[in-house]
Parts: sequence; C-alpha cells; structure tokens
Amino acid sequence: MTVTFDPTTLCYTADGLIPAIAQDESGAVLMMAWMNKETLAETLATGRVTYWSRSRQAFWRKGESSGHVQTLIDMRVDCDRDCLLMIVDQAGPACHTNRRSCFYTAIRDGVEVELMKPEV
Amino acid sequence: MTVTFDPTTLCYTADGLIPAIAQDESGAVLMMAWMNKETLAETLATGRVTYWSRSRQAFWRKGESSGHVQTLIDMRVDCDRDCLLMIVDQAGPACHTNRRSCFYTAIRDGVEVELMKPEV
Repeated sequence: MTVTFDPTTLCYTADGLIPAIAQDESGAVLMMAWMNKETLAETLATGRVTYWSRSRQAFWRKGESSGHVQTLIDMRVDCDRDCLLMIVDQAGPACHTNRRSCFYTAIRDGVEVELMKPEV
Repeated sequence: MTVTFDPTTLCYTADGLIPAIAQDESGAVLMMAWMNKETLAETLATGRVTYWSRSRQAFWRKGESSGHVQTLIDMRVDCDRDCLLMIVDQAGPACHTNRRSCFYTAIRDGVEVELMKPEV
C-alpha cells in the first residue's frame, strides 16, 4: 500500500511549527531548528534545507549567507508526526559558531565541557 | 576555566519545556521528547532519562512501565541553549510501536516509506 505524504497530517505547534533535527551521514547530530508547512515544502521540493527563523519570522535558507548549506539526503517523520529528522550533507560547519555541530557542550558532573573547537 | 552548569541558563518554552533528543552510541536518533527543569535535574541526578509528558502533564520516567529504560551516557546542550542531545543506552525499542527508533518513516518522492518493522 502506497501512502502519499500529506504535510497537513503532521502535528504543528500553535505557531504552526515542527522541530527538525539535522544529522549527517556519519551519524553526528548537527542542529535542531524549526520548520513550518511552507519551509518543509520548499525543502522537499528543492533538496536544500530551509528552516523557519523564529527570530526573524522569515524563511531561513540554511547557508544562504554563510555558504554552509545543507543538502537533504533523507527526510523522516516520527511516530507521533510531531518531529522531523533529516539526513543531510552539510557543507562546512553547521553551527553559527563555526563548529561542526551546535551540540558542542557536554554537561558532566555538573560542569560544562567544550567538546569541539571552531573550525578555522 | 570551569563553568558550573546552571539549568536556569537554558532557554525554555513559555510552558517551561526544552526539547531533548535521544541518540544511541551507534549514532541512531531514537526519539525526541520534552523535559522541564525538574525532569532534567532528575535525569542528571539519577542517570535514568526522565521526560515531561505533555499529554499526562507528569514525569515520564522512560521505560517505567515498558522496561525500555534509557540510561544517560552523555548530556549535551546546543549553542542557543534551547535544545538537549542525550547519548543514551537504550534497553529494547525506544518507540511505543516497538520499533528501535520513532523515526521509522521516510518521505521519499512524496510517498511514505516504512524503514523498520516492530521488534518481536
């Protein structure tokens, strides 16, 4: 049985948003940001990952200014249909701090530990 | 310089919640759920992952009824301090559908594709 994907079947927040996790093919979780119906549609149509910027209230075409684009390899939706997981090809660092991943700080024994340095 | 982790420095939603992604040591992203200050503190103190159930408005000690507990290996926070990533040891399937991961549905060429079956 073939099920056509219908983006209206996803569960969005009251603001019309859904969290989207980006993971590279090595398994590294790079970042989590938000999408809405329109940015999800653009991401699926173009293969270029586009988020919704909550601070700017605008499309956020990842890498548009930095060049650090994310190319979609595979899009997944979870059982509750309220979260997306994207396997992406990440050009350069994903984080605005120039680190590969936004999750570069560990919490260990009550102390923050920096796991990676900015790329140069 | 040692930075003591202060949970009040995280960015929570208006409901006092923060998304938490669980990933196993193989790199598989298992699920995303929500925490609040109290469940995060319990998770860090006990090493047993505890979420906040939005539907039940109660502590959700993962695996309490199913036995599919998550043991915390490493807790990470992202650059914006509004998302957590946990490396966990997952006993059994993470998903309530009995699949290893909640992200078992891919969206490919406009069609939903089931990537994994429930464990038996």
